[in-house]
Amino acid sequence: MAPVLAGGVAGGGDHKVNFAAPRSFTTAFKSDLKETFFPDDPFHDFKGKSFPIKAKKTLQYFVPIFEWLPKYTRKLFMYDLLAGITIASLAIPQGISYAKLADIPPVIGLYSSFVPPLIYSVFGSSKHLAVGTVAASSLIIAATLEKKVDPSTDPQLYLDLVFTATLISGVAQLILGVFRLGILVDFLSHSTITGFMGGTATLICLQQLKGIFGLKHFTTHTDVVSVIQAIIKNRKEIRWESTSVGVIFLVFLQFSKFVKQKKPKLFWVSAIAPMVVVVSGCVFAYLAHAEKHGIAIVGDLKKGINPPSLQRLNFDPKYISAPIQAGLITAMIALAEGIAIGRSFAIMENEQIDGNKEMIAFGLMNIVGSFTSCYLTTGPFSKTAVNYNAGCKTQMSNVVMSICMMLTLFFLAPLFSYTPLVALSAIIMSAMLGLIEYEKAYHLYKTDKFDFVICMVAFFCVAFISMDVGLMLSVALALVRALLYVARPASSKLGNIPDTSIYRDVEQYPGATDIPRTLVLQLGSPIYFANSGYIRERILRWVRDEKAKKDSQGDDVEYVILDLGGVTSIDITGVETLVEIRRSLEAKQIKVVLVNPRLEVMEKLIVTNFIEKIGTECVFLSIEDAIDGCKFSLTRMKDYGSE
Amino acid sequence: MAPVLAGGVAGGGDHKVNFAAPRSFTTAFKSDLKETFFPDDPFHDFKGKSFPIKAKKTLQYFVPIFEWLPKYTRKLFMYDLLAGITIASLAIPQGISYAKLADIPPVIGLYSSFVPPLIYSVFGSSKHLAVGTVAASSLIIAATLEKKVDPSTDPQLYLDLVFTATLISGVAQLILGVFRLGILVDFLSHSTITGFMGGTATLICLQQLKGIFGLKHFTTHTDVVSVIQAIIKNRKEIRWESTSVGVIFLVFLQFSKFVKQKKPKLFWVSAIAPMVVVVSGCVFAYLAHAEKHGIAIVGDLKKGINPPSLQRLNFDPKYISAPIQAGLITAMIALAEGIAIGRSFAIMENEQIDGNKEMIAFGLMNIVGSFTSCYLTTGPFSKTAVNYNAGCKTQMSNVVMSICMMLTLFFLAPLFSYTPLVALSAIIMSAMLGLIEYEKAYHLYKTDKFDFVICMVAFFCVAFISMDVGLMLSVALALVRALLYVARPASSKLGNIPDTSIYRDVEQYPGATDIPRTLVLQLGSPIYFANSGYIRERILRWVRDEKAKKDSQGDDVEYVILDLGGVTSIDITGVETLVEIRRSLEAKQIKVVLVNPRLEVMEKLIVTNFIEKIGTECVFLSIEDAIDGCKFSLTRMKDYGSE
Repeated sequence: MAPVLAGGVAGGGDHKVNFAAPRSFTTAFKSDLKETFFPDDPFHDFKGKSFPIKAKKTLQYFVPIFEWLPKYTRKLFMYDLLAGITIASLAIPQGISYAKLADIPPVIGLYSSFVPPLIYSVFGSSKHLAVGTVAASSLIIAATLEKKVDPSTDPQLYLDLVFTATLISGVAQLILGVFRLGILVDFLSHSTITGFMGGTATLICLQQLKGIFGLKHFTTHTDVVSVIQAIIKNRKEIRWESTSVGVIFLVFLQFSKFVKQKKPKLFWVSAIAPMVVVVSGCVFAYLAHAEKHGIAIVGDLKKGINPPSLQRLNFDPKYISAPIQAGLITAMIALAEGIAIGRSFAIMENEQIDGNKEMIAFGLMNIVGSFTSCYLTTGPFSKTAVNYNAGCKTQMSNVVMSICMMLTLFFLAPLFSYTPLVALSAIIMSAMLGLIEYEKAYHLYKTDKFDFVICMVAFFCVAFISMDVGLMLSVALALVRALLYVARPASSKLGNIPDTSIYRDVEQYPGATDIPRTLVLQLGSPIYFANSGYIRERILRWVRDEKAKKDSQGDDVEYVILDLGGVTSIDITGVETLVEIRRSLEAKQIKVVLVNPRLEVMEKLIVTNFIEKIGTECVFLSIEDAIDGCKFSLTRMKDYGSE
Repeated sequence: MAPVLAGGVAGGGDHKVNFAAPRSFTTAFKSDLKETFFPDDPFHDFKGKSFPIKAKKTLQYFVPIFEWLPKYTRKLFMYDLLAGITIASLAIPQGISYAKLADIPPVIGLYSSFVPPLIYSVFGSSKHLAVGTVAASSLIIAATLEKKVDPSTDPQLYLDLVFTATLISGVAQLILGVFRLGILVDFLSHSTITGFMGGTATLICLQQLKGIFGLKHFTTHTDVVSVIQAIIKNRKEIRWESTSVGVIFLVFLQFSKFVKQKKPKLFWVSAIAPMVVVVSGCVFAYLAHAEKHGIAIVGDLKKGINPPSLQRLNFDPKYISAPIQAGLITAMIALAEGIAIGRSFAIMENEQIDGNKEMIAFGLMNIVGSFTSCYLTTGPFSKTAVNYNAGCKTQMSNVVMSICMMLTLFFLAPLFSYTPLVALSAIIMSAMLGLIEYEKAYHLYKTDKFDFVICMVAFFCVAFISMDVGLMLSVALALVRALLYVARPASSKLGNIPDTSIYRDVEQYPGATDIPRTLVLQLGSPIYFANSGYIRERILRWVRDEKAKKDSQGDDVEYVILDLGGVTSIDITGVETLVEIRRSLEAKQIKVVLVNPRLEVMEKLIVTNFIEKIGTECVFLSIEDAIDGCKFSLTRMKDYGSE
């Protein structure tokens, strides 16, 4: 039989373990729900306020424009005006380029920078985020929808499906936001996004070779191998005129970025460079009759603002699977990008933005967008960075951009029909080169090999298989890692740091000394079904190893002290495992003692009668108390009692 | 600017934080691999042994019969003989019954208790496990394969596919064992298994009403609604003769269980009861010409042992999807059942069994089984319990059972052809009633609502939709729970237990006192991409709340002490989050201090230069040291320096 503890005497002392009755299920459940869905406690300063103030605060919470507009000043507007004009000059070339990437008419790209920014400025909570279309999502939309409909044979149907996909994205984002499922976006890790963006950027860069080389025939596949094959196959179509213009533009754009890097104050050089490329491209194409020399132009850009597109939404069951797929994937990616970017700029300014509120704003802007001939928009990194650097102060800069776009659509749109495709390709390519963050990948390699693998899986699968496969595999791998974290929680043997009452991992602190006849183990968290088998094996292994070691020193293991201080939760299988461990060890004449179970763990131990079974004298508040308790019973009770 | 810490002086003291260089990647990776795949350290006593001893130990490890057979004694054999005969008497009725459930000839059920137990006795490591067929897997095989082939129109092809599914199960189990993926089985939680077994048992019970009522027509669907509809639809076929015989058998079987429950020593009454039912059924059917009175009999049981079935394995792409699906699902369920049962009996006897080795044994027995006209076998709970109660000492009891089955097949098989189907239905029904563990479900409800939901999802989805859907939904829910555990780790505010240097959760220990100008937070584990956003929000919320509270007391928060003692690991996103938290708090003139980062966490903090950035003087070994450090710098430095 295992030795009996006199814990009631030695272990109690002045500071007792709290064995109070567990919280009621409702209390615990409410607290869990709050932590899961409202970790930021958005209504924390509502307590004790009168109803009109509460109503006003609620309105301001859900519609942030009511918060910032009343405090808006003319001085702030001057900043926002400048920033708005700057991002508008970026929005025009990017809008046309990315629309080309999605195989839709270029004017849709311009429309998409008119309506959505207005919606965002009302509902969005980030002061720096600039709304616009993004390359990755544009390509995903095209790659997914083209499996169902060929945009060259049936452009109208294809465009209808693009609007439908946008609506689905918007609805998905709105739902995620309303149900506060921001937690889902948390599962797109930085490593996944880095790899995914790098892979997509590589693909898009290669695809732009079509425009740079002025090729007429190409592939609709989006993997690296198909694209390179298509270039090789069509190499006879390569036009030197187009290629040389393209290279000049590209060099100019990259140079403008270089200038910005060297002198951050000159950020506007790289911000207006795409506009310069487009304008000079138009002028050149108009004067030189570029089309006759193998330099294709955009063509056909009508005047006028967004026509309604509600009647164009297409829910035909024959096609619907494609817009659903495209809509859901792009919704997640757009959210991940938009929220991450909004958050990182907010942190620079020591502000906080609410991911769930951002989702609602993105959802609304895409829903309204899908009714007004816009396609998917989010907060692209490049545009947001320009907005921030240009000194934007509030969401008003989006309104300014929107007005600029409206004026462009009313008066200037036809001028842009002369934009050479090669200019667009150069703009896209230059933007994409900045997204291949090999330095970040190297940093991952240096600091965390598993994160690096997740990143590389995303990169190579996107580049060589397809974007959705790459994204899913990488997320799956990140989830496996998350599950491994819980399936194999670290445990360690603790030793006493000499001359203190501190107990630390003996591997980390080799100076820590063993305790005679006792093994102190610190368990990882949480203990539950997926790791309880492991924890049992691991503890028995610790005991076996310790027994062998102590045997050689003429000592023995009589107590195992389990420090549960780091265990945040435990489930029934976990408790059963503790029972089994106790039984196995008692058969070896070893007594198990628990230290510092935390609130949730203690509740579960009480409710399952575990505490009752082992007796409250076997639970201690600190390791020191537990060791004192063990020593006390060892010295006092020479004869071993039975249980 | 935040106040500067004089940690170098006050925090260092005698016991210093260990900032040693991180372990090399290879060392850390090896240790991770070992914890993931070899948590039980199977080769732990190999060190320093000579080669022949090592070889012998390896052989004994992989083929346990070499370990127990040399030590085998005649006395042990007497125990095993009795146990073997007892389980053989259970194997015959169960074999015939479950084969009927799988819609295959009853003799296959007998074959399956001949070869696989022999294989298990060589490779298996559990002393108590009795090999046999199981009801749930039999039903899954039938339900899955019948979607492709109708066993009544093409019984040969159907049987071929059953053997193929068995081979696939065996190979899957072998692979899982060889690659030590026992970790996968860990994800089938007790709650899932309880719900799944209960649901399957309910289904099977209802299906047996066909046999009890003597119905000729029935449904091939396995959900509760279809089965009840089929009974109502065919109610005119109900035969009173069959029904009354069935009820008598069922009452007898349930009574024998009742006897065992009241007097555990009379376990053999319930163990031989099924055999009594079969034999008395045969005699009754033979004497009363039962078939003429609407009581169908098994019929057609040939003499002779297992014919080879290697040539019958069918990999025709037209059908292969069904055996693959059936094989993989039953492989997992059979492993979960077999390993859990072997383990629970091993714990009773204070022995340990190795899940991965068991998988290899199960895999081999099913592979060989598929070559010798057997279908899926595992370690069923009922048979194993009987084996244990009958006093088995080693795997020899399986050999005895196997020999009994061989004798039966050679000499007695034709006699069993008179077994009335209603007797089989009564045996199955009685066995299944024991698997509906409503008490366990109630226990789950009392102790863990989430586990209860997981259990109920499995139960109701199995009963009303299908077995595989139920299993998968329940596992998915358990995984979501596992991910929630890591997505929302508990954090708590610590207070000082008066007159000690112990710091505990103030919610759990309301007597714990606040520390002036300081907030001590204990973080949950691990910190990584899926929860870093949450942790940031949560910490900022703790700080905000504490500031509000301290403000009302005329105090302020100047230090936030983060206790990382419970954090087992951190990834890059987690480290970046710590950087962000630090930056946000410093903007509010609050200094962040870390306490006791564990080995892995410290390595990551060093490798990402985090420690370098915050300075080693901001890391302490214990909360007390950290508070002393903060106090010291507060009293000494009245003027705040800059960073």
